[in-house]
Amino acid sequence: MTIGVGLLGLGTVGAGVAAILLGPEGRHPLVAELELKRVAVRDPARARPLALDPALLTSNAEAVVDDPAVEIVVELIGGLEPARSLILRAIAAGKPVVTANKAVIARYGEEIAAAAAEQGVYVLIEAAVGGGIPIIEPLKQSLGGNRIQRVSGIINGTTNYILSRMADEGAAYGDVLADAQRLGYAEADPAADVQGGDAADKIAILAGLAYGGAVPRSAIATEGIDRLQARDVAYAAQLGFVVKLVATAERLGDGVEEPGAAIPLDVRVHPTLLPKHHPLAGVHGVNNAILVEGDPVGQVMFYGPGAGAGPTASAVVADILNIAGIRRATGNQAGAPLDPLLAASSWRRCRLVDGSTSRHRNYVRLQTRDQAGVIGRIGTCFGDAGVSIQSIVQFEGQGDGIEAGGAEIVVITHEVEEGRFRAALAAIEALTEVEAVAACLRTL
Amino acid sequence: MTIGVGLLGLGTVGAGVAAILLGPEGRHPLVAELELKRVAVRDPARARPLALDPALLTSNAEAVVDDPAVEIVVELIGGLEPARSLILRAIAAGKPVVTANKAVIARYGEEIAAAAAEQGVYVLIEAAVGGGIPIIEPLKQSLGGNRIQRVSGIINGTTNYILSRMADEGAAYGDVLADAQRLGYAEADPAADVQGGDAADKIAILAGLAYGGAVPRSAIATEGIDRLQARDVAYAAQLGFVVKLVATAERLGDGVEEPGAAIPLDVRVHPTLLPKHHPLAGVHGVNNAILVEGDPVGQVMFYGPGAGAGPTASAVVADILNIAGIRRATGNQAGAPLDPLLAASSWRRCRLVDGSTSRHRNYVRLQTRDQAGVIGRIGTCFGDAGVSIQSIVQFEGQGDGIEAGGAEIVVITHEVEEGRFRAALAAIEALTEVEAVAACLRTL
Repeated sequence: MTIGVGLLGLGTVGAGVAAILLGPEGRHPLVAELELKRVAVRDPARARPLALDPALLTSNAEAVVDDPAVEIVVELIGGLEPARSLILRAIAAGKPVVTANKAVIARYGEEIAAAAAEQGVYVLIEAAVGGGIPIIEPLKQSLGGNRIQRVSGIINGTTNYILSRMADEGAAYGDVLADAQRLGYAEADPAADVQGGDAADKIAILAGLAYGGAVPRSAIATEGIDRLQARDVAYAAQLGFVVKLVATAERLGDGVEEPGAAIPLDVRVHPTLLPKHHPLAGVHGVNNAILVEGDPVGQVMFYGPGAGAGPTASAVVADILNIAGIRRATGNQAGAPLDPLLAASSWRRCRLVDGSTSRHRNYVRLQTRDQAGVIGRIGTCFGDAGVSIQSIVQFEGQGDGIEAGGAEIVVITHEVEEGRFRAALAAIEALTEVEAVAACLRTL
Repeated sequence: MTIGVGLLGLGTVGAGVAAILLGPEGRHPLVAELELKRVAVRDPARARPLALDPALLTSNAEAVVDDPAVEIVVELIGGLEPARSLILRAIAAGKPVVTANKAVIARYGEEIAAAAAEQGVYVLIEAAVGGGIPIIEPLKQSLGGNRIQRVSGIINGTTNYILSRMADEGAAYGDVLADAQRLGYAEADPAADVQGGDAADKIAILAGLAYGGAVPRSAIATEGIDRLQARDVAYAAQLGFVVKLVATAERLGDGVEEPGAAIPLDVRVHPTLLPKHHPLAGVHGVNNAILVEGDPVGQVMFYGPGAGAGPTASAVVADILNIAGIRRATGNQAGAPLDPLLAASSWRRCRLVDGSTSRHRNYVRLQTRDQAGVIGRIGTCFGDAGVSIQSIVQFEGQGDGIEAGGAEIVVITHEVEEGRFRAALAAIEALTEVEAVAACLRTL
């Protein structure tokens, strides 16, 4: 008995999915039971490298969703609309949905989940985060016995590619970005990647699954790599750190909340200094990795290609197979209850805390006049604010923006509450010897 | 509605599982629906740190399996018997089983799977490989769209701990082993770990899942680290390699087999030189990692704590939750069909190939008389056998077993068929200048 699949979109990922479905040999036998019934494309007349029956193609996406032969709807259009409406239309028709659309899920996840719960259908999203890396399913199905403390990850391949090259070559951000665009690793409009929005979409999704409640996407503090300077990458390396764009969702508080109370989370995306031996520090190029820390599992990490047609198609097909598998188990009865793990229904509320109460280490680069005693005065400012310092290093002034006779001082603090750190910085900025707080990065 | 759980064994992992079930707050809400009904222990009278109702304890494991209140049987006794019989007894009673017992699954997996299929119950084994790392479920549920080319991993924590310390400290195998035993990282009888048998059990299980057919455990070529010398670890490091105990299952052939034909696999466990930047090379101490390579996903890696009460309990509870979840989806109807992904029923046959036909790189250390021309003659032997060499380095003779005036020559070959390499080695051993082929390790 075959299961009819309808595909919305036949771009690189869509074509990758179609290729798997059309070539099931050597894959799990359930793949052979999936039958591509209808495919929505912008221009059905366009020539395609895929040996696809032209009769399957249509420019009418709603017709694909509505087609009675289509039992699973796979949304690979991307963007917010019409993707959101098509997903809701499929759910309303009682059809399970597979989507790789992180933007829609990060923004309309609650609406979509509510509709799916009401209709009793699955909406699976493995491909929305981490490309081919199995991370959504493991969070849902393999770590439920844990209290999750932190989920952190390198979940944007474009920025990791740029940062890897900045570190390896000492190159400037703008130069590497231009080259990445030329090579196809960055889009013509790179804003969503380099400003951190894509990573924020993804950490919102991961946090929602890890903590069992929706996370407000718009409240996630987000900083990109577009203002990062090559010298900070170089100084960090000299001090034993690697700079990565890290997305983090951390459970705050004592881990015990009143029944029904929202749990406090600190969710952020920003360039971060990682100690060289941190598990995420070795993730190079366009690869992604997600580190999950929980009690009692400890630290587990998931690593692999964060994008690309093949890896993403692998994740999409995994979701289709899971729907096919559970359909088999339930005898495809209408109105069968959902597996609560696979459905990943929300089970508590989350609230994002004010970032000023969170604690972390910091990297600060100060441009100073090279006068005797300046390090002492900076140290005093930190000390007065109760910020303890791990290292303070003076680099001889050189390069753009450093006056002759000037110096750069880099400070790494110990872990400190953000508000206290900001107070110290304000005092330091007021020192006459300090020309500028030239860079400020968080440090794991 | 609660689900009754029966525990066989209350050692460190069993106690970890009980602790999760008894403290469900902050975990997935399905955990709160699991109720510990009965626990089999050797001595019910023994004092335990766990706040467990003494009435739950019994020394009669069969009574736990047979108890009508026990709906899921969790086998954590370890060893072959009575574990195997108890698992089969639970299956015969129509009860799903969760086990962490790699030895039983590697040896009796086919028998157990056949019984489970016949009765229509799940036997889940996430904790059998990689401790807390989700690897069994991802192989079953997240990678089914792929043709798997290779599964390789560091899946024995004890040997990885020993090898990490040998590399870091230049220490001898025996000294580190003794220290590891003192610290509890190695057992009093370390044979199963250091001779590679434990890793062979685990790669048999991983290969069976990755390729969809049982792998004969007894046919896996297995070499441990117990004859590894510190100097080879040191020389490898100088040449840019790390020595790890790697278990590998690789698909051979052109990837296209006749329908019904067994697919050819090369499954092996042995100390292996990994290039320093290989994803598995950075796995230190008691951690484990499993690298899965497939088409179209590429390389994905799963990393984390390979053993320990907490991580292993996390994996056991994940399996219990999956059974509870699917039970919910099927309305707990008797005789419900199985989800073919979760059940992981075998779908093709595998055969292990003769290792002499497999291809790989090699590290060889030769003890020679330090005579002019010896490198040339060694190179000629390799060349005559059609073995191409990547590097050949002479280390000045020093330390045990090297005569004054003698030298050690280390050769790294390019990838070559094993039979051809063995022919070259035989010719080299016959050279009068060569005293011994002192070490021979495979190289990725």
